Amino acid sequence: MGSLQRHGGNQAATAARLGCRPSQLLDASASLVPFGPPWFVRRSLMWAGLTAPLRAYPDRSYAGLRRGLARLHGLEPDWLLPGNGAAELFTWAARDAAAAGLSVLAQPGFADYPRALACWDGAWRPQPLPMQVDGSAAVGAAQAYPAPPAGEVLWLTNPHNPTGALWTRASLEPLLQRFHLVIADEAFLPLVPGGEAQSLIPLLPMHPNLVVIRSLTKLYGIAGLRLGYALGHPERLAQWASWRDPWPVNGLAAAVGERLLADPAAYRSWCGRVQRWTGREGAWLQRRLAQLPGITPLPSAANFLLIRAEHSLVPLRQALERRHHILLRDCRSFEGLGENWLRIGYQSHRNNRRILRALRQELGR
Amino acid sequence: MGSLQRHGGNQAATAARLGCRPSQLLDASASLVPFGPPWFVRRSLMWAGLTAPLRAYPDRSYAGLRRGLARLHGLEPDWLLPGNGAAELFTWAARDAAAAGLSVLAQPGFADYPRALACWDGAWRPQPLPMQVDGSAAVGAAQAYPAPPAGEVLWLTNPHNPTGALWTRASLEPLLQRFHLVIADEAFLPLVPGGEAQSLIPLLPMHPNLVVIRSLTKLYGIAGLRLGYALGHPERLAQWASWRDPWPVNGLAAAVGERLLADPAAYRSWCGRVQRWTGREGAWLQRRLAQLPGITPLPSAANFLLIRAEHSLVPLRQALERRHHILLRDCRSFEGLGENWLRIGYQSHRNNRRILRALRQELGR
Repeated sequence: MGSLQRHGGNQAATAARLGCRPSQLLDASASLVPFGPPWFVRRSLMWAGLTAPLRAYPDRSYAGLRRGLARLHGLEPDWLLPGNGAAELFTWAARDAAAAGLSVLAQPGFADYPRALACWDGAWRPQPLPMQVDGSAAVGAAQAYPAPPAGEVLWLTNPHNPTGALWTRASLEPLLQRFHLVIADEAFLPLVPGGEAQSLIPLLPMHPNLVVIRSLTKLYGIAGLRLGYALGHPERLAQWASWRDPWPVNGLAAAVGERLLADPAAYRSWCGRVQRWTGREGAWLQRRLAQLPGITPLPSAANFLLIRAEHSLVPLRQALERRHHILLRDCRSFEGLGENWLRIGYQSHRNNRRILRALRQELGR
Repeated sequence: MGSLQRHGGNQAATAARLGCRPSQLLDASASLVPFGPPWFVRRSLMWAGLTAPLRAYPDRSYAGLRRGLARLHGLEPDWLLPGNGAAELFTWAARDAAAAGLSVLAQPGFADYPRALACWDGAWRPQPLPMQVDGSAAVGAAQAYPAPPAGEVLWLTNPHNPTGALWTRASLEPLLQRFHLVIADEAFLPLVPGGEAQSLIPLLPMHPNLVVIRSLTKLYGIAGLRLGYALGHPERLAQWASWRDPWPVNGLAAAVGERLLADPAAYRSWCGRVQRWTGREGAWLQRRLAQLPGITPLPSAANFLLIRAEHSLVPLRQALERRHHILLRDCRSFEGLGENWLRIGYQSHRNNRRILRALRQELGR
C-alpha cells in the first residue's frame, strides 16, 4: 500500500501519525478548489440525506442529471453519461481503447490510465513530454501539443497532469484524423482561465472517435461525493452503460449534481470565481517559488504546479509534513518523474503563504 | 428504457405521471427495509457532509471500513472488499467467472448477473428452478438447493431473488467441490429470520474458490448511498481492487458504513429487528394473500414474495399504480417468469394492509 498512501486523502490517519488535528493539516497533495463547496451544495445534500436520494435506488437512467449536463454543454442528453467520478469512466474508455489497438500515453501522466488499460490487457506506449523548466514559457499560456508517436488511441489530459500545461485546440484537432480513438480528460479544464476555449467538446458532433471526460467534484471541492461524466456519441455511451452496473452514481451525488446544474449561469459564475483564483494564485506562487534557492517551478496553467530540484526532494517533503503539517504530492508515482519532483496544489492565499514560508525556512537550512 | 423503468426507483417521475405527490406513492417494487435508516445514520451523514468525507478523496484503501467489516465477520481486513453497492462487485466477480469457464445461473434470477457476465463475454447456461406454488412448503423454511447442471462457475442467490427461497448451507457445501468458482450473493440474508445459519461465510477460509457478496444498503434502507462488500480470499480481492478505479465507494458511504459497523452489537440488534419484521409480516401477508381469488402467493423466507395467476397480471399492476398509487414489481425482466407474475416487497404493517385492501378491491371487480 506504500505507493497508494502517497496520493493524499486519508487525512485523519496522517494527522494521527503526525500528532496533530486533521484541521491543522494543510493538504496540498490533492488539487481541489479550497473554497468549495458553495453553501447550496451542503443544503441540497442535507435535503437529499433526508429523502428519496438516500433511501431509494437512484434513477438508473440518471435522466435529470443528464438533462442538466446536456443543457450546460448544448448537446442532447444521450451524448452525456454520468460516472462514479472520472476514474470509473476511464475503465470503460479503456475497454474501447484496448479493442482499438495501441494506446499512446503522455509521460509523466496520470497513473489511472495505465490502471484502466491493464484491466482490459490494453497495450500502450509512452509519449515522453518535454519538461519546460527554462522559464521561457509564459505562465498560463496555451501551447501546441507535441507530436505523438504512432498508435491507434491517444489519451490526452488538458490541462496536463502533473505539469499543468494547457494544450491548444488547434494543435489537438488534427490528431483526431490520425487516431482511431481520442480520449480527452478535461477534468481540470473548467478551473483554468481561458481553458474552455481549448476544449474539444465543440468538436464532438463531427468526430465519433472522440470522447471527453469531465469532473464536477474537483471544481466544487466535493471529491468525496464522486461525480464525473463522459461526453461522446450516443452509441458509444449506451454501450458503456450496458457494460457497467446499473447504479454507478450514488443518489446523493445525482441530487447534488442536478442542483449544481439547475442554473447554467450559476455554474459559469462559479467557474469564473475558480478561474480568477487559479490565475491570481498561480502567477503569484510561481513568481515567489522562482525566488527560492534550489528549486525551480514549472510554468502551469492549472491549479497545481510542479517544482524540480537537482537532488531528491523527498527529505523536503518529509520535513514539510513533520515540521509544518503541510502535505505536498510525491511524484514518484508519475512515470518519468521521480524523487527530484513535487507537485503543489494551490490553496487559499493565506495557505499559499504558509506553504511558501515553510519552503523558505526548510530550503534556507 | 422501457424495461429499465420497470425496476422501481425514480419515484418523482412516477408520481408526476400518476398525478400524485411522491409521498403518496407506496413503492413495493423494490425490496428495502421500510423503517430505516436508524437516526444515527442520518446524523453521521450530516456530519460527513460538513467535513472531510465530502471534500476530500476517500481513503483508497478503505482501511476503516474494512476493519469494521472484518470485526463483524471475524475475518482479517484483507478478506473484505467494499464496493459501490453489490452490483459493482458482480462486475469483477464476472471477470473471474468468465475466465474460469461456463457459468450456471438459476432462472428466474437477478438480471444483473447476466449483465456482468456479458461485460466479459462470459458464457452461461440456465438452471431452471422448480416453482413451488402447491402450498406444501412451509413459509420461511430453508430448503435443499436443487442439483445444478454441469459448469465451471455457480452463481447462488441466498435467499433467492425473486422467489424468496432460503437454501440450506448443508445442500450448498458439496457444490464447492463440484465448481471451480462459487459466487454467493447473500445481499438479503441478514434480513431473513435464521438466515445467518445458512450463510457460506464460515466456509470461506477452507474454500479459496468461494466468494460471498453482501449489501449494507438493503438492510438499513439506504440504497441511494451504495454500499456493498465482497468476502473472499485476499489474493482474489486484491486483484479485483487492482482492476477497478481507486475510489469506487464514495466518502459519505464509507463514513456511514464505518459508523454502522462501529458497534457489532448494534448491527446485530438492528438485524434482529429487521428479521422480526420479515417473519411477522411475511407470515401474515402470505396467509392473507392466499385467501384472495385468482392469485397464489409463493412461500418465501425473504422480505418479498411472488404472486402468480393463470393470466396476465399486467392489468392488475397498472390498476394498483393508477388507482391506488401502489407500485409492485413487474416480473417480465426475470427470465423464466413473465406477465403472470408480480413481486411484492414487504412494507410496514399499515402499508401491507393498504396493499391487501387494494388487491382485494381490484381482484373482486
